[in-house]
Amino acid sequence: MRLIDKADVARIAVGAAVLGTGGGGDPAIGRLLAEAAIDRYGPVQLIGVDEVPDDAWVVPSSGMGAPTVSIEKLPSWREIDNSFDDAQVALGAQPFATMPIEIGGANALMPLALAARRGIPMVDVDAMGRAFPESQMVSFTLDGMASRFVCIADEKGNRMTMRPVDAVWQEVLARPVVDRMGASAMVCDFPVTGVELRRSGLAGTVSLAQSIGDALLDPVIHLGNPLGALLERTRGHRLLTGKIVDLDRTTAGGFVRGSVTLDGIDADKGRRIVIRFQNEFLLAEENGQPRAITPDLIALLDRDSALPWTTESLRYGMRVHVVAMPCHEKWRTPAGIATAGPGYFGYATAYTPIEQLVKI
Amino acid sequence: MRLIDKADVARIAVGAAVLGTGGGGDPAIGRLLAEAAIDRYGPVQLIGVDEVPDDAWVVPSSGMGAPTVSIEKLPSWREIDNSFDDAQVALGAQPFATMPIEIGGANALMPLALAARRGIPMVDVDAMGRAFPESQMVSFTLDGMASRFVCIADEKGNRMTMRPVDAVWQEVLARPVVDRMGASAMVCDFPVTGVELRRSGLAGTVSLAQSIGDALLDPVIHLGNPLGALLERTRGHRLLTGKIVDLDRTTAGGFVRGSVTLDGIDADKGRRIVIRFQNEFLLAEENGQPRAITPDLIALLDRDSALPWTTESLRYGMRVHVVAMPCHEKWRTPAGIATAGPGYFGYATAYTPIEQLVKI
Repeated sequence: MRLIDKADVARIAVGAAVLGTGGGGDPAIGRLLAEAAIDRYGPVQLIGVDEVPDDAWVVPSSGMGAPTVSIEKLPSWREIDNSFDDAQVALGAQPFATMPIEIGGANALMPLALAARRGIPMVDVDAMGRAFPESQMVSFTLDGMASRFVCIADEKGNRMTMRPVDAVWQEVLARPVVDRMGASAMVCDFPVTGVELRRSGLAGTVSLAQSIGDALLDPVIHLGNPLGALLERTRGHRLLTGKIVDLDRTTAGGFVRGSVTLDGIDADKGRRIVIRFQNEFLLAEENGQPRAITPDLIALLDRDSALPWTTESLRYGMRVHVVAMPCHEKWRTPAGIATAGPGYFGYATAYTPIEQLVKI
Repeated sequence: MRLIDKADVARIAVGAAVLGTGGGGDPAIGRLLAEAAIDRYGPVQLIGVDEVPDDAWVVPSSGMGAPTVSIEKLPSWREIDNSFDDAQVALGAQPFATMPIEIGGANALMPLALAARRGIPMVDVDAMGRAFPESQMVSFTLDGMASRFVCIADEKGNRMTMRPVDAVWQEVLARPVVDRMGASAMVCDFPVTGVELRRSGLAGTVSLAQSIGDALLDPVIHLGNPLGALLERTRGHRLLTGKIVDLDRTTAGGFVRGSVTLDGIDADKGRRIVIRFQNEFLLAEENGQPRAITPDLIALLDRDSALPWTTESLRYGMRVHVVAMPCHEKWRTPAGIATAGPGYFGYATAYTPIEQLVKI
């Protein structure tokens, strides 16, 4: 166990933005809420998966919706509390702790706010190791689990508890509800026991996010080369340094979808990479050939600070590094690739790990 | 209290089809289920609103979705049971009885099937006095009530309990869910106490439906003039006898919408009426002038038998009577007209009661 204070929150937020692969909601939103809660209720206990008793309940808390909306419509305590209260009713038991369902983006930080407010620990774990656009893209489903229930609440006071037959039905039924709620709602899904969490969670990812934040923010660590420090800590690769020359971005069906085109600058002059996204960056191509493929991570980092940009903050003319990082090994299994690989998103490309692609 | 047997079911089904104003789901579906349940579990106790104890709970059960779908996808016991079980959990109490939320269409009969199966009474009441396409169009909302919860279940085993802030949000959130469930699901909403039911329900409408069925089916009653007997029992008016010459009908957004055009025959030759519908017939016009306006009832009856047709069974060339009947007085209040009048459906026509329109 260690305590998370506001300085830690700032670093987790930066790491979560890198792991958000452009999506997961702007971490600034989660950071605001987490900081406000820590100011009022004190620091949060971050515990390891081994510190959760076998039969204790861990209830994730997350935002669901289109990131383009959530930056204008901050989650309220009402929806955070309502979704967690409904989860407690559905469990028929007091949750022992909370956790992020995804470490990428705002959802890395929402449970910190909840943990501070409720006086419960947060577990150093998530179920994505990054951000993904759809509810079934969690490591729990790779082990055949469905969510026992899904509690959804909005800021108007609407609330519901779904019991979908599987994680794909969860996505099918929850997405239009969240869309009608204004494309932004708070969710508690995949409550798990300590045993289940140790088996199916991705342990240590909150610390990983903080370590990425350290690499980008701490001069004593990055020694003037934040990009290099980031790539070292994530085993990542720089694909291109370029400027944004085209941007196609629409919000529909509860998602923000589109593509961003980058022309190389400096040493990369003459090259062009196109990145396709659905909330998250999913596929980077150069001359029609894949350069990085979901579930591996893609990030756009500021050319100078190496701080990450989200899809909704991209603008024409920005200078950025395109980097790619290997995903958690669970996503490289056949089940992982079927769930979150290029075929699921409709891309006619076989998955090839980033460390092989960079050798081609 | 009186017992409802299969002969009663047949008559209620015909009356429900008339009151369904072309929608509410084909009563044949509800009839099949009610007959099967009565065969197996015995007749159902139909009780008056005065027989419900003040604080006893009455839980309506109904199908929700597009009638064009439900005629191909019969509700299963699984979804009927699941939605009612979830309502019982949400109430935290044993329901005393069930009731139809709408007396028009299949939903008049679904609770009969449930009542037989569960061994509970059905109350002689509903909340529409007809069929309406949207969830908030119930007499309970006219008295300022929202549903305490809404339980929705499909045949695949998906289930959910919503707690919307009001009846309009109920419709906004439930409709896309039902659409994704295949445009057909079972719902328990607006659980009410005996006190609330007596204040805000439309008492006696199950008996009214059966009385309409008697008028159309029983030669001793209609004496060879079923149309005349029907109009007498409903204070209705024949607007036109004609044939269908055009039909525009699409299923989208969980509804079947469109219009049907009828050219007069026999004594009505040379006249033309166009009827617009959203699941239910909502507006009949002749030469651009309204002839019958929601919330008053419109029905298309077979020219020979005077038996009613649903919107999804209409075909080019059919010979029918167009009839209109006054709605329950609760729908003629300002709140009733705001909720289910022509303005709500986007028609640029003020509501005029049918008995005044026929004098113009």
